[in-house]
Amino acid sequence: MYSSYDVIVVGAGHAGCEAASAAATMGSRVLLITMNMQTIAQMSCNPAMGGVAKGQIVREVDALGGLSGIISDKSMIQFRMLNRSKGPAMWSPRCQSDRNLFAWEWRKALEGNKNIDFWQDTVNEVIAKDGRAVGVKTSLGVEFSAKSVVLTNGTFLNGKMFIGEKVFGGGRTAERSATGLTEQLISLGFEAGRMKTGTPPRVDGRSLDYNKMEEQLGDENPGKFSYTNTPKLSKQRSCWITYTNQAVHDELKTGFEKSPMFTGRIKGLGPRYCPSVEDKINRFADKDRHQIFVEPEGWDTVEVYVNGFSTSLPETVQYNALRKIEGFENVRMFRPGYAVEYDFFPPTQLKPTLETHLVQNLFFAGQINGTTGYEEAACQGLMAGINAHRNAHEEAEFTIKRSEGYIGVLIDDLITKGTEEPYRMFTSRAEYRTLLRQDNADLRLTEKGYAIGLASQERYDSMLVKRDGLAELTEAIRATRVKPEEINDWLTSKNSAVLREKSSFYTLLKRPEIDQEDVKELLKLVPNMPGVGEEIIEQTVIEIKYEDYLNREKQNADKLDKWENLSINPAFDYDRLKALSFEGKEKLKRLRPATIGQASRISGVSPSDVSILLVYMGR
Amino acid sequence: MYSSYDVIVVGAGHAGCEAASAAATMGSRVLLITMNMQTIAQMSCNPAMGGVAKGQIVREVDALGGLSGIISDKSMIQFRMLNRSKGPAMWSPRCQSDRNLFAWEWRKALEGNKNIDFWQDTVNEVIAKDGRAVGVKTSLGVEFSAKSVVLTNGTFLNGKMFIGEKVFGGGRTAERSATGLTEQLISLGFEAGRMKTGTPPRVDGRSLDYNKMEEQLGDENPGKFSYTNTPKLSKQRSCWITYTNQAVHDELKTGFEKSPMFTGRIKGLGPRYCPSVEDKINRFADKDRHQIFVEPEGWDTVEVYVNGFSTSLPETVQYNALRKIEGFENVRMFRPGYAVEYDFFPPTQLKPTLETHLVQNLFFAGQINGTTGYEEAACQGLMAGINAHRNAHEEAEFTIKRSEGYIGVLIDDLITKGTEEPYRMFTSRAEYRTLLRQDNADLRLTEKGYAIGLASQERYDSMLVKRDGLAELTEAIRATRVKPEEINDWLTSKNSAVLREKSSFYTLLKRPEIDQEDVKELLKLVPNMPGVGEEIIEQTVIEIKYEDYLNREKQNADKLDKWENLSINPAFDYDRLKALSFEGKEKLKRLRPATIGQASRISGVSPSDVSILLVYMGR
Repeated sequence: MYSSYDVIVVGAGHAGCEAASAAATMGSRVLLITMNMQTIAQMSCNPAMGGVAKGQIVREVDALGGLSGIISDKSMIQFRMLNRSKGPAMWSPRCQSDRNLFAWEWRKALEGNKNIDFWQDTVNEVIAKDGRAVGVKTSLGVEFSAKSVVLTNGTFLNGKMFIGEKVFGGGRTAERSATGLTEQLISLGFEAGRMKTGTPPRVDGRSLDYNKMEEQLGDENPGKFSYTNTPKLSKQRSCWITYTNQAVHDELKTGFEKSPMFTGRIKGLGPRYCPSVEDKINRFADKDRHQIFVEPEGWDTVEVYVNGFSTSLPETVQYNALRKIEGFENVRMFRPGYAVEYDFFPPTQLKPTLETHLVQNLFFAGQINGTTGYEEAACQGLMAGINAHRNAHEEAEFTIKRSEGYIGVLIDDLITKGTEEPYRMFTSRAEYRTLLRQDNADLRLTEKGYAIGLASQERYDSMLVKRDGLAELTEAIRATRVKPEEINDWLTSKNSAVLREKSSFYTLLKRPEIDQEDVKELLKLVPNMPGVGEEIIEQTVIEIKYEDYLNREKQNADKLDKWENLSINPAFDYDRLKALSFEGKEKLKRLRPATIGQASRISGVSPSDVSILLVYMGR
Repeated sequence: MYSSYDVIVVGAGHAGCEAASAAATMGSRVLLITMNMQTIAQMSCNPAMGGVAKGQIVREVDALGGLSGIISDKSMIQFRMLNRSKGPAMWSPRCQSDRNLFAWEWRKALEGNKNIDFWQDTVNEVIAKDGRAVGVKTSLGVEFSAKSVVLTNGTFLNGKMFIGEKVFGGGRTAERSATGLTEQLISLGFEAGRMKTGTPPRVDGRSLDYNKMEEQLGDENPGKFSYTNTPKLSKQRSCWITYTNQAVHDELKTGFEKSPMFTGRIKGLGPRYCPSVEDKINRFADKDRHQIFVEPEGWDTVEVYVNGFSTSLPETVQYNALRKIEGFENVRMFRPGYAVEYDFFPPTQLKPTLETHLVQNLFFAGQINGTTGYEEAACQGLMAGINAHRNAHEEAEFTIKRSEGYIGVLIDDLITKGTEEPYRMFTSRAEYRTLLRQDNADLRLTEKGYAIGLASQERYDSMLVKRDGLAELTEAIRATRVKPEEINDWLTSKNSAVLREKSSFYTLLKRPEIDQEDVKELLKLVPNMPGVGEEIIEQTVIEIKYEDYLNREKQNADKLDKWENLSINPAFDYDRLKALSFEGKEKLKRLRPATIGQASRISGVSPSDVSILLVYMGR
């Protein structure tokens, strides 16, 4: 009935939107299928983008040419750079978003891409022939064909929502779930599991007493996500902080016997690091309070998101407990929190491209892979979209190494280790987190995005300008020598040892007692200070002060890269290597690692197994 | 669990939003319960407000202090005054709306009313005690109590959607239906029926060839709906007109054997005057083409509404037929059209206040009463909201007579005659349509809205200014006498008889060959022309030129009013009047008319039955 496509993307959440946009921008004819065109890019959970490690991911998506950064910038109502007081590896951009605006900006961006078609329907079958996906079939019975298919079904696959003892079918409140697809994928040989996540009640901001809470302002000089020239915020909305207390906990405990989690009615595991409030008071019984972030849902709505109060207890219990929170004495709820349980597919069934091992041309991205978080979903969607396009055009795989980006860490973790519970990114998951900073994602990745036709010429050019500026400034600093009389008074004021002779300015800057703000002040001593922007200055300072760390991480990364560059033929017959351990062989056969590096990270593959592989490969 | 309310409104479409806003503005504590707060005030069908007779209703809603006019003005992308070439009774304002903006403006307006609380949930029970509604119970099991309950469930009650041979539960695409409530109302004694409506496919505007269609521009000097100072459009988007043809019809016919309507799978009757395209080619087999209006869905979306192509044929048939329409050769569909079947409650079960006879404190408004159309729903919501408030505060009923407004006509038709098919307003339904014009809704109704505390002081004051201006201008015209030499040349140029002596200007203006534009030109002859605006001039001209019609209608209306003012005690025992005809007595007992006027309009109540009633009442 319809023309066939290069790429079909199923689902239009964070993953699906990035996948469709990436493939279409690179030139694929894309069909985006969503159950409801009115809910494209809905933020199902909190109205925010970024955060620790997640903000870095958004920057990486942006650097590659994805849209999450630009759209976050256009729809944000508050921006904060988290962890400014810690080392620069920890600095993490985060924004509050206008929920409606975010969705609408995504929709406009997708509609603005001439290569994207839309179809509103539910997919319940991947059409596979001889182990290759060739299209999809919808609940209307319509068949679409494509060279690549990307599934980004979120929490909709057999989604079930829980509030107290009540259960509703659905992927999101008041929306239907998608049935049939899981069963069909299982019939193709896939293994599926269950996971759960949850969301807090939404309340009426007009009913809260903000005088009893701590105000959380946006940054005085707000930053943004995108390296492109998106506008900066000129005004911001505040968030507010309050706390649970013993009375709140006591109230919540009255509902434990009806909790779908504690009574075992929810089988799937929830996100460990984004637990429900009942989980928190259960697991951390000694803590007498937990923080609550009161987040506005947009520029001009009174709806408020009660971050930190995710719960699936009976709504009466939710309500009574909320009212015992300081500032919430007269709260009016708009709707209760709920838990949602859904199907996922253990991601060890995937290649580094997010294509499935089992069915060629079929890619999975987002929560369907067992992850949690908008940013985790978005970057998977981007990578799946890129590779779906390249697969459709018979081009080589595109991957990002662990040393190149959080995106590489995330995908490698998923496909190598799998996940038993919703996978969330942390800085601690990255071996080279000082390399993988939010300030240098463009330097790390824009060239790669440009090379595959995703990042624009403009974006690439401005990255080059930045790179040149960094080099120029670093050179100017290296060339500078300071005289004792120029600086000794200042050094004394900082309790730093005085200079006895003309010395290297570069070396001086590395003194630990001289912080980054000090360095910026001292740059006036550079004779031919190049005219570069704030961003370049900041990054240069980081590179100087953390030079030793960075060099060490680079060396380690280079070592690892040698293994990463040793590819293993996906059809390699491990049974031929009799010396492999039994467990190692089983895991290698199941996970089919793409490289020796990946093989080495598989739990159950011993160092001696790796040596055997290396010997076989002639190393 | 929650505090109790004065008024609970169930559903947040056009009816529910107006009901909640009206009751809350008048001072009631209101709870608005909706299945999904993200879909408040969704335009389920075409992105437009107003039209013939419907535009008049929006003006009346506005004049009373409702919000549909203001919100339409804020979200419109095109405005046209329909039927300008016909008499002023036919002039009808209509706008194209930005679907998203319309919904968002409603949500902001509701949130901006401090008396409105929100609850997201599905109501499946009206709690009734001793024949009186006292609250509702939701699918979460939450109970809310209230003095008045307004049900505005739209197409969601046991909603079923049909596309070809496929059937889905749901009230709107991708949204769940509401189950349980119909059955519970039936158990209370209500009679329910089924109706159907439908919607056309949505298509991708980028795939259309507008060069092959006729452009339909907005008015050069666009008007608006609200009598308040909402802004006028400074730019507009065009619609486009194209036509079906024989090839389209032939293509559609290939799907007839799978049509849910023709195969009898849909039991409910659809809207006669808004038929599906398959219905049109079936019923009007001799017509070789039907008009299609291609309507943009908003300022910045490529989605397009194919007005005139409502269909529930299989989606492949829809697609193949669309492609045979001029300009649609390469069309891409976003989603197919569908039919939706839903429960309604025959409106003869209602009082003029829209309260049910059967259960006190319970009001019905909108599609639940068997009507179709946003405007029909909105005005019922407004009237139900007003009366729900007044009921909660033990104040008298508020009604509008047939001679005062289309709203009066609509409600009287519904409760007196019922409806077998979705009821739509037409100018022909009004006996006094020259009185019920779009230009004078404020003069007809604002005083009434002000008296009950709904229309604001500001709105009332500006109506008074307009009324005074009209009187002043009419007086000035009446006082003017023109000399032959001032005007005879002009009269000759218009082929109008010349004056022989100084004559009444007022009388002159009534000559049929002098049209309204001419009158405006001639006003320069008025010596002490008051400084009044365009609107007042236009209305004065109408009142002068149509004076005779208007007087006749007023006389008729006054006559009727005598009967309308004769109330019948709702508990009147018709069995005592042995002389009544059998059918008349049955109908009177079932419909319990509030006045002799209403009784006289009931089909089956004969003139002699009316006489018997009058005799009994001492007339």
